[in-house]
Amino acid sequence: MDSMGIDLLIVTDPANMFWLTGYDAWSFYVPQAVVIPVSGSPSWFGREMDANGARRTTTLPEQAIFGYPEALVQNPRAHPMTELARVIVAQGHGSGSIGVEKDSSFFSISSFERLAAAAPNASFKDASNLVNWARAVKSPREIEYMKCAGRIVEKMHVEILAKIRPGLRKNELIGAIYEAGLLGVDGKGGDYPAIVPMAPTGVDASAPHLTWDDRPIPPDSGTFFEIAGCYRRYHCPQSRTVYLGRPPDKYRTGEGIILEGIDRVLSFIRPGVTCEEVDNVWRRVLNKYGVQKESRSGYSIGAGYPPDWGEHTMSFRAGDQTQLVEGMAFHFIPALWFEDWGIEISESIVVTPSGCEILSHTPRKLFVK
Amino acid sequence: MDSMGIDLLIVTDPANMFWLTGYDAWSFYVPQAVVIPVSGSPSWFGREMDANGARRTTTLPEQAIFGYPEALVQNPRAHPMTELARVIVAQGHGSGSIGVEKDSSFFSISSFERLAAAAPNASFKDASNLVNWARAVKSPREIEYMKCAGRIVEKMHVEILAKIRPGLRKNELIGAIYEAGLLGVDGKGGDYPAIVPMAPTGVDASAPHLTWDDRPIPPDSGTFFEIAGCYRRYHCPQSRTVYLGRPPDKYRTGEGIILEGIDRVLSFIRPGVTCEEVDNVWRRVLNKYGVQKESRSGYSIGAGYPPDWGEHTMSFRAGDQTQLVEGMAFHFIPALWFEDWGIEISESIVVTPSGCEILSHTPRKLFVK
Repeated sequence: MDSMGIDLLIVTDPANMFWLTGYDAWSFYVPQAVVIPVSGSPSWFGREMDANGARRTTTLPEQAIFGYPEALVQNPRAHPMTELARVIVAQGHGSGSIGVEKDSSFFSISSFERLAAAAPNASFKDASNLVNWARAVKSPREIEYMKCAGRIVEKMHVEILAKIRPGLRKNELIGAIYEAGLLGVDGKGGDYPAIVPMAPTGVDASAPHLTWDDRPIPPDSGTFFEIAGCYRRYHCPQSRTVYLGRPPDKYRTGEGIILEGIDRVLSFIRPGVTCEEVDNVWRRVLNKYGVQKESRSGYSIGAGYPPDWGEHTMSFRAGDQTQLVEGMAFHFIPALWFEDWGIEISESIVVTPSGCEILSHTPRKLFVK
Repeated sequence: MDSMGIDLLIVTDPANMFWLTGYDAWSFYVPQAVVIPVSGSPSWFGREMDANGARRTTTLPEQAIFGYPEALVQNPRAHPMTELARVIVAQGHGSGSIGVEKDSSFFSISSFERLAAAAPNASFKDASNLVNWARAVKSPREIEYMKCAGRIVEKMHVEILAKIRPGLRKNELIGAIYEAGLLGVDGKGGDYPAIVPMAPTGVDASAPHLTWDDRPIPPDSGTFFEIAGCYRRYHCPQSRTVYLGRPPDKYRTGEGIILEGIDRVLSFIRPGVTCEEVDNVWRRVLNKYGVQKESRSGYSIGAGYPPDWGEHTMSFRAGDQTQLVEGMAFHFIPALWFEDWGIEISESIVVTPSGCEILSHTPRKLFVK
């Protein structure tokens, strides 16, 4: 904040609010924020009925919790951000330099316009991803939570393999995946992942982000499962693909390319290499086999809320010169989507002093049943 | 659009995109839109890797599907909305009047700034909720889907009552709720609700939007379950409260107030009455018992994506003069949250020619086990 010349930061990304204060509730569909002065203590601002949620999930003192009246909720004639501006002006920040997250899903254009109109002497700067970057290097406790999420996603894949069969309706399988994910491991219960299971079959698997339907899974078909375990909002995403029947050669070829890519990338990752260099290792494998693929091959992960478990900072792709540091965590997803099919096998990792460690230990292969 | 003087509408709310075109994928964490000219056909704009999702879930012709390059995803040096502006200008709308949804969770401030910068001759108008309002009156097919969601949420409550017991860890119960919700009814599989289960116990139930943890449910405690069935993106929310043991008088008193409120409101609702009048019926019950409660008592529902199954149009509250029309659907939620406990019993309804019909038939009472 100091180096950006910001006196006050208004944080609206729910994962950033959680990381800064512990606030954890499904209230991000109405305007809310954690507000941080460059010197001083953070405060929580949200709907009056959610103030008790802040009292229950954060250690903020009572005078740092501001609830706005219910009449302002989804009301075209009034807006919560007018009230936040009033609080900010009253605290002496009315002519300050205020950072806002212009990329946050839960800080709307209306919210910003109302805030700016009611604090006309303030100047606003885009502080998108300032907190996200602060989250990039994980603490030992955060890594412990992500490893717990990793054990949870292992169980979810075990459940998929146990249950999947031709004729099973996809929604029933998804129900079993949720149950395994929420049951958790070792007495540690599962939380909701920031993305629902993506589990497209056959031609649908040409599209990376379809979720599920209620049709029976056909024989002789491939389905990928892009899922995550989640523990206390920390994620371990991990994809696997299951083929029911004897896989066509293209699935075996795809499996070979991806496994070679994962082997090479995981043995390359270490502190000091750049995100672009990691991606290049994967590109060289793709080039060797003459496969075209544009999308990034990985991204930073950690705590998250819908719609995304990604941290929106580093990506494994051309141009990203960020150097890896011990404690950073990534989802490496060298997936292949073609015109009429797709295959995903992915791993989540944390950077260690001399390399990297995998967060989950599901067997790494194309599953065939 | 005509009466607002809009030549082109850029729709970014995923529920609106779905309602207009059928597009259904978990891709709203990157910029995307359905674009509609005032005369002409809609087109889909999104990430290149998601174009196959548009081909799989919509009937849009190939020339109406625009995929932007992967390099623009979460890249500080480039932005998808610059590309959308290019498409719009190329289509002759560069100096038009363009409607955007300034309240949409998935149309960020950055997106709007980039779009406006790359279409400098266009003028932009706030068309928030224009499509939401068009969704307010449901078709017979939509009502059929919501009734299916209603049967699904009935099963979810049956499962809760069957499974809940002192000592059961909350996360295990939530897993069972998900499994019941996804299994569906009558061969119709469940979809993911736009909000995860909210299931706070005891003092936590003073906060309406806490989700769950992995602690055992204690004996002699009340837990409310604010959940929804979901079928093909259509929702039927329904809350119930379960007390384990002999409920203290305050729970019985709360139950009585809420049941009286539901009885009175459901027998009052009919075409022609206003949202405010509906709320006043509930307020009179609250006043009779001397209970203070600020929050609105209901809101319009239908198709939805995270973070909300509400439609963001009508609310049952003071000042909302919208007249009810046959086919509108609402979640009436006369919940009571106090300093150290809370109780929820709610119903979703559709307005009929002469009154209203309940969408789900779970027994309406405080459950005691």
